[in-house]
Amino acid sequence: MSNGEPRSAVTGTLPIDDRTKVHRYHWLQLTERSDLYDVLDAGLVAHVGFVTDAGPMVIPMAYARDGDSLLMHGSTAAGVNRGAGAGLDLAVTITILDGLVYAASLYDSTLNYRCATVFGRAEPVPDAQKETAVRLISERLMPGRWAEVRPPTKKELAATRVLRLSLESASVKVRSGPPSDEPEPGVWTGELPLHTSVGVPIRQAGVTAEVPESVSAAQVHLAGHLGEGRE
Amino acid sequence: MSNGEPRSAVTGTLPIDDRTKVHRYHWLQLTERSDLYDVLDAGLVAHVGFVTDAGPMVIPMAYARDGDSLLMHGSTAAGVNRGAGAGLDLAVTITILDGLVYAASLYDSTLNYRCATVFGRAEPVPDAQKETAVRLISERLMPGRWAEVRPPTKKELAATRVLRLSLESASVKVRSGPPSDEPEPGVWTGELPLHTSVGVPIRQAGVTAEVPESVSAAQVHLAGHLGEGRE
Repeated sequence: MSNGEPRSAVTGTLPIDDRTKVHRYHWLQLTERSDLYDVLDAGLVAHVGFVTDAGPMVIPMAYARDGDSLLMHGSTAAGVNRGAGAGLDLAVTITILDGLVYAASLYDSTLNYRCATVFGRAEPVPDAQKETAVRLISERLMPGRWAEVRPPTKKELAATRVLRLSLESASVKVRSGPPSDEPEPGVWTGELPLHTSVGVPIRQAGVTAEVPESVSAAQVHLAGHLGEGRE
Repeated sequence: MSNGEPRSAVTGTLPIDDRTKVHRYHWLQLTERSDLYDVLDAGLVAHVGFVTDAGPMVIPMAYARDGDSLLMHGSTAAGVNRGAGAGLDLAVTITILDGLVYAASLYDSTLNYRCATVFGRAEPVPDAQKETAVRLISERLMPGRWAEVRPPTKKELAATRVLRLSLESASVKVRSGPPSDEPEPGVWTGELPLHTSVGVPIRQAGVTAEVPESVSAAQVHLAGHLGEGRE
């Protein structure tokens, strides 16, 4: 976990209301706050939805959980950062696809996944907290890299935008395991697991330095986060 | 590709307007229609954004490309299907995360990804075309499975909702390769590729049938689609 918070310390339930209630397959909804944090801590990219003058927009953003809020860093395109200054309402969805579920009929076949959506108005992280925020996101995506390279300059921080979104309002939906219906004679039914796996590091042309600790560690870190170790 | 269309047959460019123009890192925008189809044919889950009375919403949906349109199948929660009957405006984003890019500074470090967003009003697929639509999505996610199991019943098709969204308005953004800045002496810089990989099939308890052709084929099919072969 990005902030080193012990999982057992997370208690409480998520409020269920008109916005957070799952309607379709409602029995897949999880309501513990720890369920939410588990999904957020397992994904790498959030899909951030908001409304522009031209209609809805959804953009991918890198993120990290910081205790009871989400820090998001990414493209300033399409007004998400401009609008967020004015308290733009967001729906932020993180989905991890865990597998294909082969049932005896296609109708009952489905996907295994972990999905969380966080709702609310994000705020820009103030200048004084920006370095800490950038570091949390960096440690999440590239653990250990912060210590290996020079710190960000003031100019770089000034050009960086990070949004903070409270985790107050959120909904979690998780499907796992075999098909829900009973097996039929003569038909193979079951799951085909999907993982995100990490390849061999590719060094930039002209680089002579050895692969650093952070890159080797990322192979372990990401594999764990992304579910490779769940089989 | 789900519809067997030869890639070389896809020509033409995507219209650039206020909604589809990429602002941040605009040089990463691709404008060939074939670029769009490549991204759509490589992803498995779309993040569908729309506006509800309570604010923006983003939900994951399974999808398949059918020529010049996108077929989407998934949760009917949160009004996307109800609203779509009335021509609900959508932003549908498909993102494939291809790797982490380690630059000499964290500021210049980034992600490699392929991302496409399709904009527009979806329409429910009419009853007469529903079986074909369901089959295309099925063949995309579980190729060959359609031939191994019984066809959907009328009742199942009646309970199924599929949306069709034209690919007329869309934007594509792709980053690949090493860091953009020159390497610095003594600092390792480069890429750490990420892939989606397919695990070993897990048979449902009580099943005695052998792993079928469709499940074995999926291991190859998905690996190719999802970029495992791109290293």
